[in-house]
Amino acid sequence: MATKHFYPVADGLVQQALLGTVASHSKLGLLYADKVIYHKSHPRNQVAVISGGGSGHEPAHAGYVGSGMLAAAICGDTFASPSAKQVQNGCMAVPSDQGYILIVTNYTGDMLHFGLACEKMKAEGHKVGVVKSADDVSVGRQNGGMVGRRGLAGTIILDKLLGSMSATGASFEEVLALGQAAGVSLVTISAGLDHCHVPGRPTAYGGLDHTTLEIGMGIHNEPGVQTVSPIPPIDVLIDRLLQYMIDPSDRDRAYAPFEPTDEVVLLVNNLGGMSTLEMRAITQCAVTQIRKNYSITPSRVVAGTFMTSLNAPAFSLTLFNSTYTAKQCGVPVYKVLEYFDAETDALSWPKTHRYNDTSALVENNKASENSISYAIDIVVDPDTLDRKLRKAAANVIAIEPKLTEWDTEMGDGDCGKTIEAGVLALLQAMDEEGLARSGSVLKVIDAIVAITEDRMGGTLGAVFGIFFAALFNSLVATLSATPNNTPVEKVIAMATVKALDSLRVHTPAKEGDRTVMDVMIPFVEAFKDGNIAEAAKVAKAAAEGTKKLLPKLGRATYVSSLYTRDVLPPDPGAWGVHELIQGLAA
Amino acid sequence: MATKHFYPVADGLVQQALLGTVASHSKLGLLYADKVIYHKSHPRNQVAVISGGGSGHEPAHAGYVGSGMLAAAICGDTFASPSAKQVQNGCMAVPSDQGYILIVTNYTGDMLHFGLACEKMKAEGHKVGVVKSADDVSVGRQNGGMVGRRGLAGTIILDKLLGSMSATGASFEEVLALGQAAGVSLVTISAGLDHCHVPGRPTAYGGLDHTTLEIGMGIHNEPGVQTVSPIPPIDVLIDRLLQYMIDPSDRDRAYAPFEPTDEVVLLVNNLGGMSTLEMRAITQCAVTQIRKNYSITPSRVVAGTFMTSLNAPAFSLTLFNSTYTAKQCGVPVYKVLEYFDAETDALSWPKTHRYNDTSALVENNKASENSISYAIDIVVDPDTLDRKLRKAAANVIAIEPKLTEWDTEMGDGDCGKTIEAGVLALLQAMDEEGLARSGSVLKVIDAIVAITEDRMGGTLGAVFGIFFAALFNSLVATLSATPNNTPVEKVIAMATVKALDSLRVHTPAKEGDRTVMDVMIPFVEAFKDGNIAEAAKVAKAAAEGTKKLLPKLGRATYVSSLYTRDVLPPDPGAWGVHELIQGLAA
Repeated sequence: MATKHFYPVADGLVQQALLGTVASHSKLGLLYADKVIYHKSHPRNQVAVISGGGSGHEPAHAGYVGSGMLAAAICGDTFASPSAKQVQNGCMAVPSDQGYILIVTNYTGDMLHFGLACEKMKAEGHKVGVVKSADDVSVGRQNGGMVGRRGLAGTIILDKLLGSMSATGASFEEVLALGQAAGVSLVTISAGLDHCHVPGRPTAYGGLDHTTLEIGMGIHNEPGVQTVSPIPPIDVLIDRLLQYMIDPSDRDRAYAPFEPTDEVVLLVNNLGGMSTLEMRAITQCAVTQIRKNYSITPSRVVAGTFMTSLNAPAFSLTLFNSTYTAKQCGVPVYKVLEYFDAETDALSWPKTHRYNDTSALVENNKASENSISYAIDIVVDPDTLDRKLRKAAANVIAIEPKLTEWDTEMGDGDCGKTIEAGVLALLQAMDEEGLARSGSVLKVIDAIVAITEDRMGGTLGAVFGIFFAALFNSLVATLSATPNNTPVEKVIAMATVKALDSLRVHTPAKEGDRTVMDVMIPFVEAFKDGNIAEAAKVAKAAAEGTKKLLPKLGRATYVSSLYTRDVLPPDPGAWGVHELIQGLAA
Repeated sequence: MATKHFYPVADGLVQQALLGTVASHSKLGLLYADKVIYHKSHPRNQVAVISGGGSGHEPAHAGYVGSGMLAAAICGDTFASPSAKQVQNGCMAVPSDQGYILIVTNYTGDMLHFGLACEKMKAEGHKVGVVKSADDVSVGRQNGGMVGRRGLAGTIILDKLLGSMSATGASFEEVLALGQAAGVSLVTISAGLDHCHVPGRPTAYGGLDHTTLEIGMGIHNEPGVQTVSPIPPIDVLIDRLLQYMIDPSDRDRAYAPFEPTDEVVLLVNNLGGMSTLEMRAITQCAVTQIRKNYSITPSRVVAGTFMTSLNAPAFSLTLFNSTYTAKQCGVPVYKVLEYFDAETDALSWPKTHRYNDTSALVENNKASENSISYAIDIVVDPDTLDRKLRKAAANVIAIEPKLTEWDTEMGDGDCGKTIEAGVLALLQAMDEEGLARSGSVLKVIDAIVAITEDRMGGTLGAVFGIFFAALFNSLVATLSATPNNTPVEKVIAMATVKALDSLRVHTPAKEGDRTVMDVMIPFVEAFKDGNIAEAAKVAKAAAEGTKKLLPKLGRATYVSSLYTRDVLPPDPGAWGVHELIQGLAA
């Protein structure tokens, strides 16, 4: 259980959070003392749909205040109901001639305090109704006794539907009827890896051990209805949750009916401490199982953080049957979904879209291949090209044990094998496909770019890849921009300078940082006039010079303090490049 | 560190999460093998703005794909860059005649693989540009060396601005220029209570102990730049973070200038494991400090989960200077903010609004009071009223020690004192304000409703409050609906039945559940004809009867197994009600 907090005591935490919420939304007002967030310009001729409850469930409910959703949210302290007076004052902040509908989660404190406010407001002559939010299916009818089902994330769907409908100018009775119909069309269940810790309270809630999860966890650290150990595979877990939610043969539950042809919304809720990565995978698992096991294809899938238990590592699944709602209250089902999708400027209601069926994607989708096409080229003597490439490859293969030894000492040891893998692939392409046989320099470079990606990989593969891809580009550009009789060496030298410039856009390494750049930079500079023999000498000296350099990039930086300058091996990447150059220059 | 997961091994996790993401948005496409989410109808005549990077940072970047934001997101494995081939295939999924702008976070792998894709695509004749996202200010220029600043949550602002601008039909060069200008106008720093754990990897990252936090934590479990112990108060911490971000005298930082007149956006980012409650309070603290210490009033405040490190309990603050951006690229500042606010159908970009200044609210806002006004009444003999109320109060005061004893055994021990507090307040109102002197029954009931809220509280206060508020309502209604000569007792009896009905809407308790309802229900039934003496006898018997009932609601349910039916004390709430009734009947 995460017991560390930036706010270790709860003093003022809720009110600071409310201030932080309204800071993001200029259309929200705040009754600071009453802990009420309200919509400053809620139209008097629309029903005011209001919710609230204890804090600690953010973004519920303050995040849902806005046009087309809640008129106000009444907030209690963490996990504690607001008082009836707060509720009344919240209602009075959004005066309505049409009446007030209070969406109340089914907990004793909330039901009583909102209920008291409701009766007091009626005494003042207001039209007030309560819509009870009670979507939990973890407890069956038999054991649930009279408390009945708790209000969980499904309440946010009530907030949205009723707020949307009210914004269309619907009457008090119509909004209330939709609320009651939607209330019985919602089922929710949660599963959690652990409880949460409330800032400022003792840590005695009893966390779960490493192999245990709970099903039917509440949103106030109430223990789950079942503990399960070991933690089952996710598809097994979700299967079980869906059974509780849907199974029509479960006589103790089956709280709402679900037919394959129904328009059903799936809402996947992060109780606060789950990674979004896992939440999205859970969403996919839930969609897959609902389709497979119940032949229900959801009309909408919404996933996010709707109703939390602080930062509990837990999630809940909610199904909302809009077809059943439509049947109960006579609003057509397309209208119910329109209310669900309608615009709101509330901070925390997400954009909703139609469900996107990807089931055909997984099998049919293969990574596609790219290759470069070109209409211009440099053609050299095929034998010379073949010989130079083989010499460069042979140099690397011969020095590989040394490169590996040096990199094992200073880095992660893969440098030698990475470069060797590249030249072996090059030799293979020459032997099996006759890569050098046409004498096309661009063809060879194109092949090298592919090899750096497919056969080398890692940082070194990417550096080589960028350099050769850029060299390809700059050769084409240089060929187009220089007279036809420019010597090949000169064209290559000019293009090499530009390729190095491109590479430097993508890597911060510069001379002195103990990387391949320590050879490449001086080499390219020396090669400027096309004299590769001279440039190769410079490259050799530069490779030797890396023995005097301390690492500044990558993993090697962490071990550098272990060495004195005198005993450093050369940089293996730089040395490998020098060996390649010597081969090409030979 | 939270090391439990629903997906304990990482196999397929990223791809399942991508499927789960597109399930929510019918306009998104997925290249399953390449882990690319793309906008299916991205217009060919608009620049394709593309981002990506390792997974584990959700909702970044897949959650930002949509009209007016990213054309595609290229996803690697958890905390690992995608390959150049993935990037190329992602670009090809959203073909553009205007070109491709890659927003790349400044990490070696991302820069190199996106860089290689860039060079290869240029070789194919495409227009491709890279905008580097490097907003971290935790490392100063001196120690940062050549790696430079890391890309953190500020990159999402780049996604938004460039995507918005591209949707207006801006040219490749214009979008690129905005990207470069915005890139140097962003500063971000993070603070974390702990690292996160990557599913399927060893747990050897070294969590932080209970008293330590880190400043400058990365988004891949990179250690922070500083550890701080003990954990400082939040305002001290945020002060320090803001210094790193803004302080113009910090020669090693001051990466972007901030003037009081600048239009500045504050983005507060949950790295994944923080409760939204704490995040919102942190937001308020940051806004307050920026205004106080730097005289900067943000134009926009956005808070949420933008760029995570799985579920790390950490947050980051980002400041974006849109005025400085405007100066750098020539786009007017109002346009920059328009791009920021513009609609997008991307799943995870929030609705943005103008900053809402609440600084005047805190002092001026007091909870307001409500009281009921009424034009109809029941007036009885003041002396009788006074005597009955005093007798009821005396009964409760006399029995209080017993009620407390019984409730200590079975519940949380506050029942006796709660009821006593109510009757003491009633006596005070009678003695000091002459409450009963006018003989007005409605006035007394109105006062009792206020007392239940102000002086009793808790479940019992709310139950009494609802009953008396409902009784007030039903008395007024009954008075209006019955002939003037109806006996007072009869009117009260009829109203009592209706009040009980209202109460039962707000509480699930019924007879036999061992609550106050065990006395109230039979009493009200027996009182139907207005004979209070007979009804009081029924109430007494019912109170005695609670000795045979096991608790089914509230805290008492947890200890019920400790008792056998024979030794139970009566229910203290029910008994208290019976004592009140005996007083009123006397």
